[in-house]
Amino acid sequence: MKTTTTTLRVRYGETDKMGIVYYGNYAPYLEQGRTEWLRDIGFSYKWMEDNGIHLPVVDLHIKYKAPAHYDDVLTVTTMLRKIPTYRIEFDYKIHNQHGQLLIIGETVLVFVNSETNKLMKAPDFLLNKIV
Amino acid sequence: MKTTTTTLRVRYGETDKMGIVYYGNYAPYLEQGRTEWLRDIGFSYKWMEDNGIHLPVVDLHIKYKAPAHYDDVLTVTTMLRKIPTYRIEFDYKIHNQHGQLLIIGETVLVFVNSETNKLMKAPDFLLNKIV
Amino acid sequence: MKTTTTTLRVRYGETDKMGIVYYGNYAPYLEQGRTEWLRDIGFSYKWMEDNGIHLPVVDLHIKYKAPAHYDDVLTVTTMLRKIPTYRIEFDYKIHNQHGQLLIIGETVLVFVNSETNKLMKAPDFLLNKIV
Amino acid sequence: MKTTTTTLRVRYGETDKMGIVYYGNYAPYLEQGRTEWLRDIGFSYKWMEDNGIHLPVVDLHIKYKAPAHYDDVLTVTTMLRKIPTYRIEFDYKIHNQHGQLLIIGETVLVFVNSETNKLMKAPDFLLNKIV
Repeated sequence: MKTTTTTLRVRYGETDKMGIVYYGNYAPYLEQGRTEWLRDIGFSYKWMEDNGIHLPVVDLHIKYKAPAHYDDVLTVTTMLRKIPTYRIEFDYKIHNQHGQLLIIGETVLVFVNSETNKLMKAPDFLLNKIV
Repeated sequence: MKTTTTTLRVRYGETDKMGIVYYGNYAPYLEQGRTEWLRDIGFSYKWMEDNGIHLPVVDLHIKYKAPAHYDDVLTVTTMLRKIPTYRIEFDYKIHNQHGQLLIIGETVLVFVNSETNKLMKAPDFLLNKIV
Repeated sequence: MKTTTTTLRVRYGETDKMGIVYYGNYAPYLEQGRTEWLRDIGFSYKWMEDNGIHLPVVDLHIKYKAPAHYDDVLTVTTMLRKIPTYRIEFDYKIHNQHGQLLIIGETVLVFVNSETNKLMKAPDFLLNKIV
Repeated sequence: MKTTTTTLRVRYGETDKMGIVYYGNYAPYLEQGRTEWLRDIGFSYKWMEDNGIHLPVVDLHIKYKAPAHYDDVLTVTTMLRKIPTYRIEFDYKIHNQHGQLLIIGETVLVFVNSETNKLMKAPDFLLNKIV
């Protein structure tokens, strides 16, 4: 299954008084990971939304192994877990600039027709890029 | 001019590694202040949006006098500056539980018709409540 | 096991362009839940930190059942799962003002001595309050 | 005076239900701008903090000219306004990928000795790089 990496630098406001990245601020990092995964296979998530497909998250799981600090350069590795159906499942790993594993993440998103607000199957134009 | 106060408790994730509330996190506090100001005169901002009026911020100014800390209980005082026209201007003060002044803020928002995306005058149903 | 509820109102900035609360913004809601759970048994998390105990999150799991919207009043129900050891585990449910279940959450936090940065057992002053 | 530019891509969670970047989320963009300005003259803000100098923001002013949207690539231009004394003042402009001006920003930060918590003059090692 296709894997993409993207990097980002930790912002000051993403840390908390413990001096490390706040646990909730990894969710945007995972979002950036899957956005770049999609872009890498030739799609923009923005384009999908503009064309009537929403992808809300229905399940998020993060295991925190080591903290990220301000100004760290993180690498988000995003892996598709299996061929999407009504759902699309990603696995993630985030490492810091020293190669240390910081978190392991999993998300499940569902395809929703934004006009009818109903679940829909993964669009063919996406499946054709993957398989 | 009408003044409203509302309170909130600082969340952990709103602090940064300096151990104080991150400077950008006061913007949601001001937003909560003006939302409650509107509710206090009999409106919900949500209702206005549902009825075709958007209120984007066009100017934000904050002077930081003293830091807020985790778990502090803050009081946001929101004052209308003058009768709204195409713009609505608020002044804010935020104090902590010891009565210490933390920030002074000012925002200017404009009334926008969300269908045409054009500027509009403050709606009469709002003006009638104020004057 | 002890259960606490706390309420909060969704802020504008917590929504995203889908018009619903961004999936990452539930993490602060859960944090508020467990903070109030602690306060309810007679502790402040702030006090614990000031006395050398940190509680970093090592595991977060959220199942999203229905979306929250701007200005919704959410009730966070926080339940201790079992007697803490080196870890403290909470289960959460968040409902909206109509009683609709929005998310189910789980977190695992560990007790860390903030001077030595080593894992430690749950302090007696906490255990004495629970059992 | 020295000017630096840095780019960033708007994240989904940085938008709000109006479909545009939430007004408070420009504060981290400005922070990224001045961090890269410092790095550009040979400093890391992280290094300064590690060496006992804090730089809290005491004044923030943003004029919003046009909205940023999800997935936009923004360019933050950061300009030092004058030689720092106890304060360091930056002017900012943010443009989108079409060259459109989105916001004009200004911040004032002060140098603080993080041990004594007292104001201090801009350190020589910084001034030497600027003048």
